Amino acid sequence: MSAYLKNAWYAAAWSQEIGRQLLKRVIMDESILFYRKEDGTAVAVSNRCAHRFAPLHLGKLEGDTVSCPYHGLRYDSSGKCVFNPNGDQRVPVGARIRTYALAERSGMLWIWPGDADRADTALLPDISYLEDRTRYAPVTGYLNVRSNYRFILDNLLDNAHLNTVHHDTLSCEPFRRGVPHLKPSAGNANEILTSLICPPGLPGAIWSQIWAAEHDGVAPGSMDHWVELSWEPGGTCLQETGITPEGRPRSEGIATLNCHLVTPETGQTSHYFWGIARPFQLNNPEFDEQMKFGANYAFQHQDEPMLEAIQKESGAQDFWKMRPALTVEDVTLSKVRRRMDELIRAENATPAAATSSTG
Amino acid sequence: MSAYLKNAWYAAAWSQEIGRQLLKRVIMDESILFYRKEDGTAVAVSNRCAHRFAPLHLGKLEGDTVSCPYHGLRYDSSGKCVFNPNGDQRVPVGARIRTYALAERSGMLWIWPGDADRADTALLPDISYLEDRTRYAPVTGYLNVRSNYRFILDNLLDNAHLNTVHHDTLSCEPFRRGVPHLKPSAGNANEILTSLICPPGLPGAIWSQIWAAEHDGVAPGSMDHWVELSWEPGGTCLQETGITPEGRPRSEGIATLNCHLVTPETGQTSHYFWGIARPFQLNNPEFDEQMKFGANYAFQHQDEPMLEAIQKESGAQDFWKMRPALTVEDVTLSKVRRRMDELIRAENATPAAATSSTG
Amino acid sequence: MSAYLKNAWYAAAWSQEIGRQLLKRVIMDESILFYRKEDGTAVAVSNRCAHRFAPLHLGKLEGDTVSCPYHGLRYDSSGKCVFNPNGDQRVPVGARIRTYALAERSGMLWIWPGDADRADTALLPDISYLEDRTRYAPVTGYLNVRSNYRFILDNLLDNAHLNTVHHDTLSCEPFRRGVPHLKPSAGNANEILTSLICPPGLPGAIWSQIWAAEHDGVAPGSMDHWVELSWEPGGTCLQETGITPEGRPRSEGIATLNCHLVTPETGQTSHYFWGIARPFQLNNPEFDEQMKFGANYAFQHQDEPMLEAIQKESGAQDFWKMRPALTVEDVTLSKVRRRMDELIRAENATPAAATSSTG
Repeated sequence: MSAYLKNAWYAAAWSQEIGRQLLKRVIMDESILFYRKEDGTAVAVSNRCAHRFAPLHLGKLEGDTVSCPYHGLRYDSSGKCVFNPNGDQRVPVGARIRTYALAERSGMLWIWPGDADRADTALLPDISYLEDRTRYAPVTGYLNVRSNYRFILDNLLDNAHLNTVHHDTLSCEPFRRGVPHLKPSAGNANEILTSLICPPGLPGAIWSQIWAAEHDGVAPGSMDHWVELSWEPGGTCLQETGITPEGRPRSEGIATLNCHLVTPETGQTSHYFWGIARPFQLNNPEFDEQMKFGANYAFQHQDEPMLEAIQKESGAQDFWKMRPALTVEDVTLSKVRRRMDELIRAENATPAAATSSTG
Repeated sequence: MSAYLKNAWYAAAWSQEIGRQLLKRVIMDESILFYRKEDGTAVAVSNRCAHRFAPLHLGKLEGDTVSCPYHGLRYDSSGKCVFNPNGDQRVPVGARIRTYALAERSGMLWIWPGDADRADTALLPDISYLEDRTRYAPVTGYLNVRSNYRFILDNLLDNAHLNTVHHDTLSCEPFRRGVPHLKPSAGNANEILTSLICPPGLPGAIWSQIWAAEHDGVAPGSMDHWVELSWEPGGTCLQETGITPEGRPRSEGIATLNCHLVTPETGQTSHYFWGIARPFQLNNPEFDEQMKFGANYAFQHQDEPMLEAIQKESGAQDFWKMRPALTVEDVTLSKVRRRMDELIRAENATPAAATSSTG
Repeated sequence: MSAYLKNAWYAAAWSQEIGRQLLKRVIMDESILFYRKEDGTAVAVSNRCAHRFAPLHLGKLEGDTVSCPYHGLRYDSSGKCVFNPNGDQRVPVGARIRTYALAERSGMLWIWPGDADRADTALLPDISYLEDRTRYAPVTGYLNVRSNYRFILDNLLDNAHLNTVHHDTLSCEPFRRGVPHLKPSAGNANEILTSLICPPGLPGAIWSQIWAAEHDGVAPGSMDHWVELSWEPGGTCLQETGITPEGRPRSEGIATLNCHLVTPETGQTSHYFWGIARPFQLNNPEFDEQMKFGANYAFQHQDEPMLEAIQKESGAQDFWKMRPALTVEDVTLSKVRRRMDELIRAENATPAAATSSTG
């Protein structure tokens, strides 16, 4: 039984990571090869040669085919072995490597690790703001985290940790007193939405700096805070978070759009892609650098050590069997965990779908 | 089935290791947090937050409570969650971490990893000589050994290895010819006692030096040697070892009282605490240093590599299933292993007791 | 069930590796001690003391006996414990360590890890050319490879990889177009023989250099190439490979005799011994160095990384269950794998034989 939900879109790589070189990336314990064809289309195939199992990423990209480093068998982008340079040059019958459904949108390559026939681009998460340079200035990043992907999602879906883990940057009384409220899903039936309802108050260090930068150095007074959160299966968290003067409409405040895309690498390691788009300080590379520095500080120096410590304490134990004593602040992550459990259970009950896809 | 005997006192830490900082120590595969309350009482609780499993040793000690580094939930020394700083500040129902029975005596913190209700301080090993400064000068130490605790006990309960492993320090003809004799237990019914009966002869290098230091530089002649050994469940070995001129009463000789306290960390690693108390050369810091140097040389540079090599050769295999060809010198360790096997079997037959304790 | 074929001769060590020092080498997951007796005879015994399991290679060789580093018990070369230096000096009843059948021939120590009674020196592989200095100049080497032994055999039994992995040294059109043809076995019924049938053409870089060195610097023209290959259970590959001017008898060409001896260390690591004997450029140490450099370059810098990458991609998965899409070039290795599978299955069906041998 797979511990992963395979029939969903996952972030595989930032677009600029994939080019005319061969990239190996492990996703859900599978070794996958990524490259671009001459026309620019990205390809994801099994990294394991069907012949004698050499890893293809050590081979060569020739035109739109990849040749194995061991015996030179060549595969096209549909996974079919199209050339055997040796002996009588006959291609072995049935020599084919698995392909994965891929979609490229908004600077991200999305992979559907399950049944390619079910890969529906209508289900792609919307992070188009990352590419809308007329309205937003984006910063993005990637971390390889030694933690199960679900601990990372727990972290992203929980505002309470802001006051401890990010005590010097995001912590503030409004977030501390904030309580998440589940909302009805808008589109995707499996989506889970939450609003964090916070009392007004002074913002934390980062938001104060941002506000001052936008208001001639004048520090903010008591502000209304909001965090609108949506989760989509399997590892997509989208956020809008902002502040506005107490009692004023959100349009008078400032906010950022954040995406957090978590993709299982193995049972105890994950790929974590993040992006933050701000509709202010456009075309300000220095501000970009500050945003990037702040995000890296928070994710890499504060969240990541905590997530790795939890992974180490927990090992391969089941979350629910460890009997967590959850709080009302955990309502979102709890619902997401239960939804994921159901979806994984359902997917495992139809095993064919999870493994049958070849390009 | 546990491979450990949990209902017994084990050395957890030297008293001075535990203070107003948070210490994590793994005992019998469990991650345990140690600290002292403001009144000086030592506390041992599970290191895993009941909420979302962050390791508490990365948190903060505030008064007599520990706050979790992840969300700031605070636990008192009884293991109860007493404060939630977030949201509506409600403490999650049933949020509690396991506590462990602890006793502090003779400069040692003793832990009872099993059922706290059965923790009987009358069973605490007596190493009071380590604190009796009017009569003894003690030296103590700690090693983390990459070996199962039972291989370490085997080593401590066996005098034959003195002549090979400690060939340049303790080896001597009397020890080489010594034969252990089991004695009836005095108090604790599970205790196992042995006397090593040795023919007279010249002592080894260390005892010769000690004797000369006590007798104006005059080297010893033929001496009677003795080693009185007691083992108590689970990892306590107490020794008296000394020399006296051949045929003279022990009171005319010199002897030291030694304790060796072995605590399982994991299946293949152990905590090893040792102490040596001498009733001579009191208030002689230079002599202390020499004793400490000699003990570290023997334990760390001679015994430890041997124990780790045996662990590596043996892996997780069962000692008896490897069919050891035991000698008469192994009578003590053999009896101790069989007693431990019985006690562990009996404890596993009443599983509730081994796991039910909460403070 | 063992994954190894134990009743066969395997290369254990080059003769010069074994002397009057103690050598530990793991073979088929067993820790084995090698040394030579005073009369020069090589001995292989279990490296684990029968008493309390200390590794004997840390002990001492005294005459023809080995004394344990832990308690000084001494074993003779038949594996019998012959001396206990301690206490009453009684040797424990039944104290004996396993011995392994060994044969020394052609500069190699061969071990028979299975039932010593079945060890038949008539089955020893013939690599006598390595010692026939009147006719051959040999070079030899050893590599410890982090790969299952069967991936290494696959590699040795396959000529197709010469054109990719060894693209700059051995690759040539004749080898690329070569097709292996199975031949009837001559002697040993379990032996598997193949001839590589190649079209004529220019040889690769290494053979061109060798030819030129032998022919006053004149480069070869179109040549006939041959590779005669034999495999014997479990890890022996013997090759004759050579070139001769197109249409001329082999006797007018040049050829080398190569042996490749692969011995399982663990499930994922192997000992690999190789030798190359040339019947030309005798007594030319500079040529020896060039041959050795070339072989090391090929084996260590080209084959080894590939084999380790395949091992890493494949983990502990079964080769056939991964469903290899084999080519006609794989006919030899495929037959060898099937033969080995049969022999291992048969051996496991008679378990007593595989484990009963003591010297």
